[in-house]
Amino acid sequence: MRISDYTVTPIAIVDPPLRAASGLHAPYALRVVLEIAGEDGITGISENPCAQGIPETLARVCERLKGESPLQLTALLAKAEDIMSATDDSRGDSPWDQRVRVHVLSALEVACLDYLGKRFEVRVCDLLGGAVREAVPFAAYLFYKELGAGGSLGFGADDTARGWAEARQRRMKTPEEAVAQAAAMVEAYGFQSIKLKGGVLDPDSEADAIFALRDHFGPEVPLRLDPNALWTVETGIRIGKKLDPVLEYLEDPVRGQENMAIVRRAIESPLATNMCTTSFDDLPNSVKLHSEDVILTDHHFWGGIKPCIELCRMCQTFGRGISMHSNSHLEVSLAAMVHLGACIPQLDYALDTHTPWQSDALTQEGPFSFEDGSIKVPDRPGLGVTLDREALASLNRNYLECGLKSRDDEAEMQKIEPGWTFQATRW
Amino acid sequence: MRISDYTVTPIAIVDPPLRAASGLHAPYALRVVLEIAGEDGITGISENPCAQGIPETLARVCERLKGESPLQLTALLAKAEDIMSATDDSRGDSPWDQRVRVHVLSALEVACLDYLGKRFEVRVCDLLGGAVREAVPFAAYLFYKELGAGGSLGFGADDTARGWAEARQRRMKTPEEAVAQAAAMVEAYGFQSIKLKGGVLDPDSEADAIFALRDHFGPEVPLRLDPNALWTVETGIRIGKKLDPVLEYLEDPVRGQENMAIVRRAIESPLATNMCTTSFDDLPNSVKLHSEDVILTDHHFWGGIKPCIELCRMCQTFGRGISMHSNSHLEVSLAAMVHLGACIPQLDYALDTHTPWQSDALTQEGPFSFEDGSIKVPDRPGLGVTLDREALASLNRNYLECGLKSRDDEAEMQKIEPGWTFQATRW
Repeated sequence: MRISDYTVTPIAIVDPPLRAASGLHAPYALRVVLEIAGEDGITGISENPCAQGIPETLARVCERLKGESPLQLTALLAKAEDIMSATDDSRGDSPWDQRVRVHVLSALEVACLDYLGKRFEVRVCDLLGGAVREAVPFAAYLFYKELGAGGSLGFGADDTARGWAEARQRRMKTPEEAVAQAAAMVEAYGFQSIKLKGGVLDPDSEADAIFALRDHFGPEVPLRLDPNALWTVETGIRIGKKLDPVLEYLEDPVRGQENMAIVRRAIESPLATNMCTTSFDDLPNSVKLHSEDVILTDHHFWGGIKPCIELCRMCQTFGRGISMHSNSHLEVSLAAMVHLGACIPQLDYALDTHTPWQSDALTQEGPFSFEDGSIKVPDRPGLGVTLDREALASLNRNYLECGLKSRDDEAEMQKIEPGWTFQATRW
Repeated sequence: MRISDYTVTPIAIVDPPLRAASGLHAPYALRVVLEIAGEDGITGISENPCAQGIPETLARVCERLKGESPLQLTALLAKAEDIMSATDDSRGDSPWDQRVRVHVLSALEVACLDYLGKRFEVRVCDLLGGAVREAVPFAAYLFYKELGAGGSLGFGADDTARGWAEARQRRMKTPEEAVAQAAAMVEAYGFQSIKLKGGVLDPDSEADAIFALRDHFGPEVPLRLDPNALWTVETGIRIGKKLDPVLEYLEDPVRGQENMAIVRRAIESPLATNMCTTSFDDLPNSVKLHSEDVILTDHHFWGGIKPCIELCRMCQTFGRGISMHSNSHLEVSLAAMVHLGACIPQLDYALDTHTPWQSDALTQEGPFSFEDGSIKVPDRPGLGVTLDREALASLNRNYLECGLKSRDDEAEMQKIEPGWTFQATRW
């Protein structure tokens, strides 16, 4: 049961012109696919964000892990950490997480779990205590956006999906357009919670969009807003109070645990985070300050599925809720998210996913289907997804040809608004 | 992979007349052995303390778990918790842990892991991330005691063990006798750390024993003292300061997290606990008060091996050390302790075990052998131990014949010292 080979394949997947605090999504989002192969011919796979340095570090680490056993996962990951000990891994001010070490650890952990699941002929979730739910709920993820979908929903476009295929082409800026985007997405996927990615318009306009969603969907559909820490404490408190009657939670209104704690004490909505508390090292101060009520797990950012389960135990112990963060991703990442979601004893909120915005497929099984906003845990060994090698090759060609080597939403934004710059705190 | 049958067997194992804060050990310590059987004919086993109510509750829960899959362990344990929801499970002032629910959960968890290990033909530790160490270090565990060993070391009594077989018969009360007990135990097992169970003599006499051990073994052998929370805060500080130069840690000098926090701030030795912080519910206040530096895991008390691994992640996150507690036990418990000890990434201290004091054996493999104080992780599927059915039947007869139904060190103590009563705080 030893690793005899590995392949690291960076890919570029078509992404629509979504707006965010960071600027504008480029036509491609970068991902990296890891395959490890055992001497027994069994392979394990994973998918991760492809920030600068990740593919190279992953290859460098894997080369030195040849001969290690995925069954000795704790030791294998400790060895990987040792190999990367010189790699700087600070989180920085970036709206998204580009830390190389956690991404490499996650890539390795998930690929090993996929391998072990296949080897023992059980699902990844069953390696980790089993599924406490066989269907994992996700939330609609709304984005301000420019015209164009960047790709077509060439798959699964049945009757209910057709409306969404058309709607996702449209521009979204006004509250009415937010409601239209949400209605089409909810119709197609059956989502029962809605999240709006904010930090794009002035805060009052984004609050207006939330109120419009509430008017349209009523109080039974939970609503979340995520301005990506772009607000001042004053704005966080002002908009937070305004939205108190209608929000399920407010995600990262401000930057830093101290600021989160101030806003949290001043408003009633729970505060969630994926930017202020993003590692085990951040937890003691988060607990001390009570800076957040909800931690967003993300197996890509916390070093794998198992660390996220441990994070959940900690959240349960310290009275924090659990939700899940998402980046643009394809089915291998989504499969891991579903397995994690299936394992978490206390899952308080529907999970985030970018799935409705993606138009590529990476696996033979194709995109997951949703039922009432939920995804069934695949009933196949490991993650339950198989790479489509033609699709992988084609997405790798995209990567080589698109010229992008890391995500730069600021540069992309400047193409439509010259002189635009990212600001860590904007309003 | 469904549970089709189970057996709950209470047993009484011969125990020497060891002294403790609670009084005197009875001639028998009570344990309970759980066997679960799958439809596939594979069985899983575990061993637990047998406090009042545990065998009956275990049987009642197991009856309703027939048809459940050990692979769906989280859900299975949640169902068990539901069945026991009416069971009171407060820790109380008792020096040892008699909570029914955590013991039943632990019994189930370990038996399911043993089953799964056998089913997949891997070791229990390999179901949980693998062994970060193949030999797990234990500490010598010294006890004040009356004359008599309660049983003979009928096994493994090679040349180095013969001295211990003779020494363990002896009375232990003075510092000189403590050194003699330690020297014989260390000679036989190779232990490299020493713990003295205190709370028996006046605190200064116990401190004298520690100083005598230090004089004999020198500074390279770490020393611990555990008076089982019997001291006042004033005594804890006074004796703590006195022992600061020589202790690896001081375990539960006083009762309650608030008192522990006061003593901790006043002395230099790290404080460890197995009485003040004994469940996930206790952790938030422990973190807030910083009442301890070291948490003693015990898979019997924390609901199983996996919860202990999660506890370790929490300790690592919040800067607490990890050690392990022990009760009188046989090889099935010890095997689970070894697998847990093998899995913990950050193991700061040698683990406690009562093994040198036990004279019974429960498995075909017989008592574990120690090398330099460490036990090698068994290289067999599951826990790596197999019940010896004749031994089990004989130990069950002991249980039925000895008339004990729960541990009562006070009653036993009164047989040699009429009128003796347990006091939660004595000095």
